[in-house]
Amino acid sequence: MSEYNYKTEINVVGRDVLVEINGKSHVPFQGVGKYQPIGSKAAPPIRSCKDYPDSGDKWVESIKEALKRCGIKDGMTISTHHHLRNGDYVANMVFDAAAGLGVKDLRWFPSASFPCHAPIIKHLENGVVHHIEGSMNGPLGDYCSQGKMRGTAVLRSHGGRYQAVQDGDVHIDIAVISAPAADAFGNANGVRGKAACGLLGFALADSQYADHVIIVTDNLEPFPCIPWQIQGNYVDYVVEVDSIGDPTKIISGTTQLTRSPDRLLIAEMAVQFAVEAGIVKDGFSFQAGAGGTSLAFAVFLRDFMQKHNVKAQFVRGGSTKYLTDMLEQGLTGYILDGQTFDLEGVRSMRDNPRHQHTSPFTSYNYHGKGNFASMIDVVVLGATEVDVNFNANVVTHSDGKLLHGIGGWQNCLFGKCVILPIPLFRDRIPVLVDEVTTLVGPGELIDVIVTERGIAINPKRQDLLKALSGSRLPIRSIEELKAEAEKVCGGKPAKPKLGEKVIAAIKWVDGTVIDCVKQVEE
Amino acid sequence: MSEYNYKTEINVVGRDVLVEINGKSHVPFQGVGKYQPIGSKAAPPIRSCKDYPDSGDKWVESIKEALKRCGIKDGMTISTHHHLRNGDYVANMVFDAAAGLGVKDLRWFPSASFPCHAPIIKHLENGVVHHIEGSMNGPLGDYCSQGKMRGTAVLRSHGGRYQAVQDGDVHIDIAVISAPAADAFGNANGVRGKAACGLLGFALADSQYADHVIIVTDNLEPFPCIPWQIQGNYVDYVVEVDSIGDPTKIISGTTQLTRSPDRLLIAEMAVQFAVEAGIVKDGFSFQAGAGGTSLAFAVFLRDFMQKHNVKAQFVRGGSTKYLTDMLEQGLTGYILDGQTFDLEGVRSMRDNPRHQHTSPFTSYNYHGKGNFASMIDVVVLGATEVDVNFNANVVTHSDGKLLHGIGGWQNCLFGKCVILPIPLFRDRIPVLVDEVTTLVGPGELIDVIVTERGIAINPKRQDLLKALSGSRLPIRSIEELKAEAEKVCGGKPAKPKLGEKVIAAIKWVDGTVIDCVKQVEE
Repeated sequence: MSEYNYKTEINVVGRDVLVEINGKSHVPFQGVGKYQPIGSKAAPPIRSCKDYPDSGDKWVESIKEALKRCGIKDGMTISTHHHLRNGDYVANMVFDAAAGLGVKDLRWFPSASFPCHAPIIKHLENGVVHHIEGSMNGPLGDYCSQGKMRGTAVLRSHGGRYQAVQDGDVHIDIAVISAPAADAFGNANGVRGKAACGLLGFALADSQYADHVIIVTDNLEPFPCIPWQIQGNYVDYVVEVDSIGDPTKIISGTTQLTRSPDRLLIAEMAVQFAVEAGIVKDGFSFQAGAGGTSLAFAVFLRDFMQKHNVKAQFVRGGSTKYLTDMLEQGLTGYILDGQTFDLEGVRSMRDNPRHQHTSPFTSYNYHGKGNFASMIDVVVLGATEVDVNFNANVVTHSDGKLLHGIGGWQNCLFGKCVILPIPLFRDRIPVLVDEVTTLVGPGELIDVIVTERGIAINPKRQDLLKALSGSRLPIRSIEELKAEAEKVCGGKPAKPKLGEKVIAAIKWVDGTVIDCVKQVEE
Repeated sequence: MSEYNYKTEINVVGRDVLVEINGKSHVPFQGVGKYQPIGSKAAPPIRSCKDYPDSGDKWVESIKEALKRCGIKDGMTISTHHHLRNGDYVANMVFDAAAGLGVKDLRWFPSASFPCHAPIIKHLENGVVHHIEGSMNGPLGDYCSQGKMRGTAVLRSHGGRYQAVQDGDVHIDIAVISAPAADAFGNANGVRGKAACGLLGFALADSQYADHVIIVTDNLEPFPCIPWQIQGNYVDYVVEVDSIGDPTKIISGTTQLTRSPDRLLIAEMAVQFAVEAGIVKDGFSFQAGAGGTSLAFAVFLRDFMQKHNVKAQFVRGGSTKYLTDMLEQGLTGYILDGQTFDLEGVRSMRDNPRHQHTSPFTSYNYHGKGNFASMIDVVVLGATEVDVNFNANVVTHSDGKLLHGIGGWQNCLFGKCVILPIPLFRDRIPVLVDEVTTLVGPGELIDVIVTERGIAINPKRQDLLKALSGSRLPIRSIEELKAEAEKVCGGKPAKPKLGEKVIAAIKWVDGTVIDCVKQVEE
C-alpha cells in the first residue's frame, strides 16, 4: 500500500487493514470477543431548559434555518437515518441546505444510504460533503468504489453504528431525524402519517448523543406525540416540510416471496435443517430478513409450526405481513422489530402492543450489558460470498464493487444457530470461494450454509453434525460444495481488478477494523 | 456557623448555604434560570457483551451475591427508587445484605424514603450507612433533624435528582431497582405482578448512569418483559425474592378525597379561580397531586369540564381513579403520568395507550432541552409554609423538623399558573409567615395562594390580577391574609428552636443550593 502511505496492520484474520482512517486511529480486529473496550461512553454537553422555549414549541421555519441555529460549520458531522429507505427526501434536502449556507467538508453519517441519495454525488464533487460513513447501497457505493470520494468510507453494522456513537468513536455535531409524526417539542414516531415507516430506532443513538438534534416532519401533531420513539427532550429544533419521503418507496406494500424453484428449495431445506437440529420447538425464537429466500424460510417455517402446533416465544423483525400474521395467529408471542418492511408491519406495530419497536441499542449494541442478538435460536442471513472457512462477505460483489451495507448482519451472527441459505452460484459465478473478497463475518460465527445442492455444517459445530448425522438432507462438506460450484461454472471466479487505493474500512461490532475495501479498476 | 467550620455563602435569596457538602463543592442558588451549566453529562464505563451471558440470563441467587459481584465496597453510593412507597421491602434488604458483607460508610441515594425504611436507622447507627441523600419522609427525617446522621443530607426534586445523576454530581456505584415484573435479561416494568406500582420512572437515571445495576423482582417473566420501562441492556444482575413489597401499602386501592369543609371550599375556589383566569378551556392542561385538597380540585374541575363540555389536551399524573375516569370519559386526550397512586392508575397505565408512563427525564429534568413541566397551564401544589414574598416551604414543619421530601414540587413551579391551595392555619399555627423556615420554592414562580378566607395573587402576575379584577372571589393581598391568620391564631408562629448543625441541603432544580436545614433542638 506504499503509494498511499497508509498505516496498516495485518489483523487476526489475516487482513491488511488501515489503523489510521481519515486522520484518526483505529484498532485492528482482534478476534470475536477479544477486544476489551476501555474508558467511558460519549458525554454530550449539559443543556438547560432556560435556553429552550417554556412553551415547548421548537418549531423553526426551514432546515436551513435549523442548521444555522445549530451552528453548522465546515468539517462537521451530520447524521441521518434510513427508515424511509429508498423513498427518503430529507438527506438530500439537508445537504442542499448546507450547500446554500456555503458549508464545506461535511462528514455524512447516515445509518444507510440508498439509490435515492445519488444527488449527494454532486455534493461530494462540489466539496460540501467530504466523505460518507455508512452503508452505501447502489450508486454511492459505485462512486466510492471508483475511488472518487476524498475520505475513506467506514462501514458499520447497525449495532456497530450505535457502539461508535455511544463510545464516542463518531461524534455527531448535528443529527437530522425525519419523522412521519412529531410534535413541536420534538417527540416523534414512525407509526402515523403519510410517510409512516414504523419506527425510528436507527436514529436513537443520534438523538441521545448528538450535540444538536433537528426533527424534520411532514405531519406535525399536537403535543404529546405518542409513542415517543424519539424523545423531544433530546431535540433542539422541529422543522415542517411538505413531504419527508415518497410513501411508495418507503414501504412497498407487498414484499415478494421468491419464485425461483432453487431459492424455494433452499428455504425449505433450511427449515428442515432447523427442525432436524431440534431448534424448532415451543418457546424458540428466530430472525429472518425480508429478502425473497428469507421470506420463503419464514413462510415454510410458519407452515411447519401450524402443522405441528409449535409456538415461538418471540421472533425478530424486519417485519412483514408474514410475521404479523404469525403474531395474530398466536404462532409467536411477540415480534421484536427493528424495521418494518411493509404496511402490515407498520399497522401491527402501531396497534399491537406485542409488536414491539426496538433499536440497535436493545438488539445489537455489542458494547452494552448484553443484547438481543445472542438470544435468538436460529437466524437466517444472506451473503455475497462465503469461503471454505465459512467466512462471509455481504458488502462487495465478486467484481469487488462495494454495493451493499452491513445492516444488522454482523450483529445477527451472534445468534445460536446462524444459517446462510445461498445459491451455489449467481450469474454462473460461484458464491463459495477460496477466500472472500471482503471479510465481513468471521467463519467461527457461521454455522450452516444451505445451497440448492447441499448443506455444509461448520466443523466447529460438532453438535449440529451429530444431530443431523442420520438426516436425509444432503449434508456435505463446504469443500465438496465449492468444487461442485466450480465444476458447474467452469472454474473459480475471476479475481476482481483492484487498485491500491483503500476506499472503505469495514468495522467489526466492537469498533475494530476487520477488513478494508479497495478501489475497483475499470 | 463557626462551631462546625462550615464553608458557606449567602445566596441570591438571602440564605446562608453550604458550598461544601460532604467534602464536595456545590454552587449557591443564583436565581431562577440564571445558572449556566458547563461541561458534559456523566459518562458511564463502556461495557462489552463478551462479559455478559449470551443467553441473556443474568439471574443470580441473592441480593448479597449480586452486590458482591458488583464489587461493593466501603464508601460506595447505592441507589433505590420509591415507586413501592411505604410498602417497599427492598431497600432494607439491600442494607441488611451490605451489613452482612461487612461494608461500611455507604451513601444511600433513594429517590425517596418512607416510614417503612425506619430500620435503616440501625445501619446509620452501626456505620453501614454514612448518610442519606434523598427525601426522608417521617422517622428518617426526624432522626436526621436530631443531628444524628454523620453526613449532610441532600434533598433534591425528582427532576433535580435526574439532573444530579445525569450531570455527574452524584455518581451511583450500584443501583438496585425493585421491579414488579422483570425478565432474566433485566427488562422490567411496574404494570404487572403482585407489587404492581405502575411504572419505574424514578429509577430511569439510575439504570442509565450507574456503574452497576441490579433488578430485584418477585415476578420473573419469560423474555421479553414488555413494556421495558427499564431496559435490560443497562442491567448487570437479576435477583428473585419472595416479595419486593407489601401491595396494601404500595397502592391504597382508594385515594381519599378530603372531607374537611374548609379544604373542599379551598379546592372549589381554586377551580373557580382557574376558570375566571381563562385557563380552563379546550386544549388546556393541568397537574394536581394525590393529596386530599388536590384530589378535590381535580374532582371539581372535572365537574366543571363535564358541565361546560371542556376537554383537556393532557393532564399530568400522579394518577388516580379520578384522572383515569376523565381519560375514559374523553375529558382529556392523555394522561402523562409519573406515578400511579391507586390500582385504577396501574390498570389504566397497563391497558390504555393514552395513559403514558413518563420519567423525571421527560417531565422534570431542568438540564435537558426543555421538559414537560413548563408546558402545563395550571398546577396545584401544597406547601407547609408560604411567606409574604410568596416563597414556599415543603420540607420542614413549623417546628423546623425535616419530615417531607420535595418530590416533583420544585419542578412543577415552572407551570404557567402555579396555585397553592393551602389552609390559612394548621393546628392553630399560621401557614402564612414573614419568612419561610426553609426556602424551597422562590416566590417569583408562585402565582396564587388560595385559602379558605381569601385568594392572594402574586403582584408579579398583573395579568391574573387584571383578569380577576371583577371577580366575586375574595381576592386579597397576602399581607391581609397573613394578618388574619395571626389574628385567629393569636400571633405569629413561634420560631423553631434550631441548633448550629446543618443537617440537610436543599437543591434547586439546576443543582445549586437554595437553602439549608438545621438541627432541631429538643
